[in-house]
Amino acid sequence: MSHQNLILIRHGESLWNQKNQFTGWRDIDLSQKGEQEALQAAMLLKKHNFKFDCSYTSVLKRAIHSLWIILKNIQHSWIPVKKDWKLNERHYGILEGLNKKAVELKYGTEQMHQWRRSFTICPPKISETNVFFPGNDCRYNNIPKSLIPTSESLKDTMKRVVTYWNTTILPEIKKDKKILIVAHGNSLRSLIKYLANINDNEIEKIELNTGVPIVYEFDSTYQPKKYYTL
Amino acid sequence: MSHQNLILIRHGESLWNQKNQFTGWRDIDLSQKGEQEALQAAMLLKKHNFKFDCSYTSVLKRAIHSLWIILKNIQHSWIPVKKDWKLNERHYGILEGLNKKAVELKYGTEQMHQWRRSFTICPPKISETNVFFPGNDCRYNNIPKSLIPTSESLKDTMKRVVTYWNTTILPEIKKDKKILIVAHGNSLRSLIKYLANINDNEIEKIELNTGVPIVYEFDSTYQPKKYYTL
Repeated sequence: MSHQNLILIRHGESLWNQKNQFTGWRDIDLSQKGEQEALQAAMLLKKHNFKFDCSYTSVLKRAIHSLWIILKNIQHSWIPVKKDWKLNERHYGILEGLNKKAVELKYGTEQMHQWRRSFTICPPKISETNVFFPGNDCRYNNIPKSLIPTSESLKDTMKRVVTYWNTTILPEIKKDKKILIVAHGNSLRSLIKYLANINDNEIEKIELNTGVPIVYEFDSTYQPKKYYTL
Repeated sequence: MSHQNLILIRHGESLWNQKNQFTGWRDIDLSQKGEQEALQAAMLLKKHNFKFDCSYTSVLKRAIHSLWIILKNIQHSWIPVKKDWKLNERHYGILEGLNKKAVELKYGTEQMHQWRRSFTICPPKISETNVFFPGNDCRYNNIPKSLIPTSESLKDTMKRVVTYWNTTILPEIKKDKKILIVAHGNSLRSLIKYLANINDNEIEKIELNTGVPIVYEFDSTYQPKKYYTL
């Protein structure tokens, strides 16, 4: 017996995806196209008659609002929504807010590729005095200061995502709860890397489309078995 | 020192408020006017610069969607939202779905007044075989069957609301958390009756307008001091 217990969805297009800017932990809302993508994700889930017991998202509005649009349109507004910073997008350090093309022109294609796609390399860190340092935002008041990032590699992002998975989400999967996670390109890539045991080089080739539901099946011992997009 | 730690808001107009039907636990969405009322509530909170740490609502979409509209428009989408059936509207038994004018014509003005405004009288109970009995709705699977209502007086509603207040919300108030509750006419009237110690006859005169924020102030020992609408 297998269990289709988990759906992952990357949030719809944000206003900064549209402008080709690094977003990371900046709290940028969905574009109109992004809202439509969330609606389309809901229609697909509805068509396949998916039901959920609980949902998880980040503390960033592009993911939260995508989840709200989905829940409303699959008649699941009443299920619990748990929001946690550990599902946030990767922190892009000083690159946040910059145009990707401008960064590439300034630092070169190879450096840009390393910052975006290497598993272990971090962009330059943001200063703790910067207004955008997460420690200056009250939503992160409860995080121990040593855990608040000033920049992250995908490896750093994966560490917190996998901690959250193992402590919070997996125990619910093991109770046979049906789970929906709406999060970000890199928090979801991290989770997929972990669940599908993808190596550090292969993960750079995996890109998630916005608003496309990914179905995860688990075997009878709750080991991940396969995944596919709807 | 006093604390403005609590705001109560009755959800915006629903599609059945508009049609003058008893709604209770039926899960009816906001009307367009109701969405506008939630937006206006948000604008008022923003104007007065209210901030919140946590929010509470029922498991009914007219309250949840009102809360989502408010949170989105006061830039608070990231705060925790706790949904609980104990904040649901009063259960109106067999009256749910019926037009209020038709009920009055059939049963008489006095009976109608008693069902709507008496503190202790319940409308006739819904049958447990009825598709609308809450025990047949998976969102109520976790409630002990003995607690699932088939009809409620305001006193019954108040009992569950006050339980939830004392076990779940008041401990947060005592931690100086700033709380937003978006719920229903009768679950909020119950809470106000309890907090302001209003007697069983007086409470029938208190009517809450949809989408109007009610501010509660607490004294230094976290006793409710006064309340007023914005």
